[in-house]
Amino acid sequence: MAERIRYRPALSDMKPYAPGEQPPPGKFIKLNTNENPYPPPPEVVDAIQKAASGPLNRYPDPMATAFRRAAADALGLPGPEWILAGNGSDEILTILVRGFVGEGQRLRLPYPSYILYRTLADIQGAGWEQTPFEDSWKLPAAFRQSDDQVRLVLLPNPNSPSGTVVGPTEIVKIAAELDCPLIVDEAYADFAEDNCLGLVQQHENILVTRTLSKSYGLAGMRFGFLVGQPHVLSELAKIKDSYNCDAISIAAATAAMSCQDWLSKIVGRLNATRRRMESELADLGFEVTPSQANFVWCTHPSGKHQAMYEQLKASQILVRYMDFPDWGDGLRISVGTDEQIDACLRMLDRSL
Amino acid sequence: MAERIRYRPALSDMKPYAPGEQPPPGKFIKLNTNENPYPPPPEVVDAIQKAASGPLNRYPDPMATAFRRAAADALGLPGPEWILAGNGSDEILTILVRGFVGEGQRLRLPYPSYILYRTLADIQGAGWEQTPFEDSWKLPAAFRQSDDQVRLVLLPNPNSPSGTVVGPTEIVKIAAELDCPLIVDEAYADFAEDNCLGLVQQHENILVTRTLSKSYGLAGMRFGFLVGQPHVLSELAKIKDSYNCDAISIAAATAAMSCQDWLSKIVGRLNATRRRMESELADLGFEVTPSQANFVWCTHPSGKHQAMYEQLKASQILVRYMDFPDWGDGLRISVGTDEQIDACLRMLDRSL
Repeated sequence: MAERIRYRPALSDMKPYAPGEQPPPGKFIKLNTNENPYPPPPEVVDAIQKAASGPLNRYPDPMATAFRRAAADALGLPGPEWILAGNGSDEILTILVRGFVGEGQRLRLPYPSYILYRTLADIQGAGWEQTPFEDSWKLPAAFRQSDDQVRLVLLPNPNSPSGTVVGPTEIVKIAAELDCPLIVDEAYADFAEDNCLGLVQQHENILVTRTLSKSYGLAGMRFGFLVGQPHVLSELAKIKDSYNCDAISIAAATAAMSCQDWLSKIVGRLNATRRRMESELADLGFEVTPSQANFVWCTHPSGKHQAMYEQLKASQILVRYMDFPDWGDGLRISVGTDEQIDACLRMLDRSL
Repeated sequence: MAERIRYRPALSDMKPYAPGEQPPPGKFIKLNTNENPYPPPPEVVDAIQKAASGPLNRYPDPMATAFRRAAADALGLPGPEWILAGNGSDEILTILVRGFVGEGQRLRLPYPSYILYRTLADIQGAGWEQTPFEDSWKLPAAFRQSDDQVRLVLLPNPNSPSGTVVGPTEIVKIAAELDCPLIVDEAYADFAEDNCLGLVQQHENILVTRTLSKSYGLAGMRFGFLVGQPHVLSELAKIKDSYNCDAISIAAATAAMSCQDWLSKIVGRLNATRRRMESELADLGFEVTPSQANFVWCTHPSGKHQAMYEQLKASQILVRYMDFPDWGDGLRISVGTDEQIDACLRMLDRSL
């Protein structure tokens, strides 16, 4: 008899994306997935409590309009039609790949950066090409070279694992040379000195993704969004599930956008902790990449990064050990509370 | 200059799926999208309230294990590995199409039934074929004919718009002849006399989808799941976003699965209202398809279905007018509260 369960070959051939470890809550100091160590603003908790007794038996607004209005206001965008809401920026990235990259075509990403993009290409049966960063995390000319088979270019900005930023002037140059959309993935932009939101209105092929998982302390809520020109977003909206964001997360995200003062305060606090981390890691002999995100990439002359990761883990401290073939390995440490970072630094000191 | 925004051709060519109208809350008696007119169990509201002050700054469990354990218990499945949780059964259906149907291949659905499946094929750049139901909503032999290019067969059971059911014995026969997976979409199965959950353990190519949007009164929460053999689910899990269900919806869905007494009571009440609807619609001269779901399909000898829909809408009562080319049109009316149904019946009586 014929085989009855035949997956698409693209699926059978691929390895799934492995996100950072998510141990049961409470056991570890978690510095491995760039979550915010602080809880979300109390207004968000209130909004969830209130929505819980709302009409949950009814479908939510398919376009999350309340959120889009609040976000357009908070971010200085002309209106809600410049925003597409998603179930985390993960869903937004999936929609972008499905919208632009066909089987056999390719997407482009820098290297090392966010390897989820490769998985999204794999699922789609599409290819991917990685353009290595130059020294000092600059993008080479190859990154902006147009190529008929490259249908989407993705740039985490700030980048992970480095926390480095490519400035808006350079972004405009890259987009101008490409003949495909350039996605600036701004998951960490609230921690950075600059961002690319202001470019979207002038440049049709620049689109910006954002998430509430990092700066807003809402990783558990799954809410992200895409900023782009309205005609592009309305075409991409065809791909999303009809009701992709639930009523509770729409209420939470809407409330979060009104907490810009809270956001400034938390970002200020985390950036201060990050600067201290950078300085103390350097004192311990680490080479530290200056970061504009809520994490720090560091390497040590001893090269014993994996051992350090394991020693930290044995002491209930989780950081991210990352090994990028043909490039190198190191530790990516999320910015936690001052107490968490002190504990991590103490353990690193002891393990050296 | 070259065009910079080039969508996949599949996307440019397709029309998006249009879900039922979702007017602002409160204005209409909503009998158009098969929502539960009753709120979810109080235990669910409590679970959401409690989760709201939980660690929302942390990512949720990627596999929603607490929910899967509770659901396996409630449904008599061997364990959580027989369940894959999704952001609504919409997401589950997307995952199935992406898992099995490649560009140029096809999925099969009966006709008339749930046209979303066609949209999912369109997005994928795949084709679809519709097999018309025979008289009395029986499936013809053509529905179970194996075909190398047909990689997925989908059957809403109970079907929409008819509310009719294909029994488990017939489902087993269909699956045995097909050489691809048969998805039994049981969105409405809690209202029916029988279901196919018990077939999954014996038949690798039978998979069942469920949702909490209808019987559990949680359309606003977006939670659905797939029941299938563990080796199939673990392959399909590669496609989902890493954290596809949020912490709040996992808590809500887990609580809902423990409310089986509440479920029986609500289903009993809605089915009683449905039987009364069926009888009173028949008294008004409608031809009514006997339903095992929380909606009723009816046609009137006058054929003035669209005018009736519009008159109802003018009186703030929304039902679904559906027109299936080459088959016919009619009204699909969701089962509401007794008061809502009385209001609807009164208006229909007046409009005749």
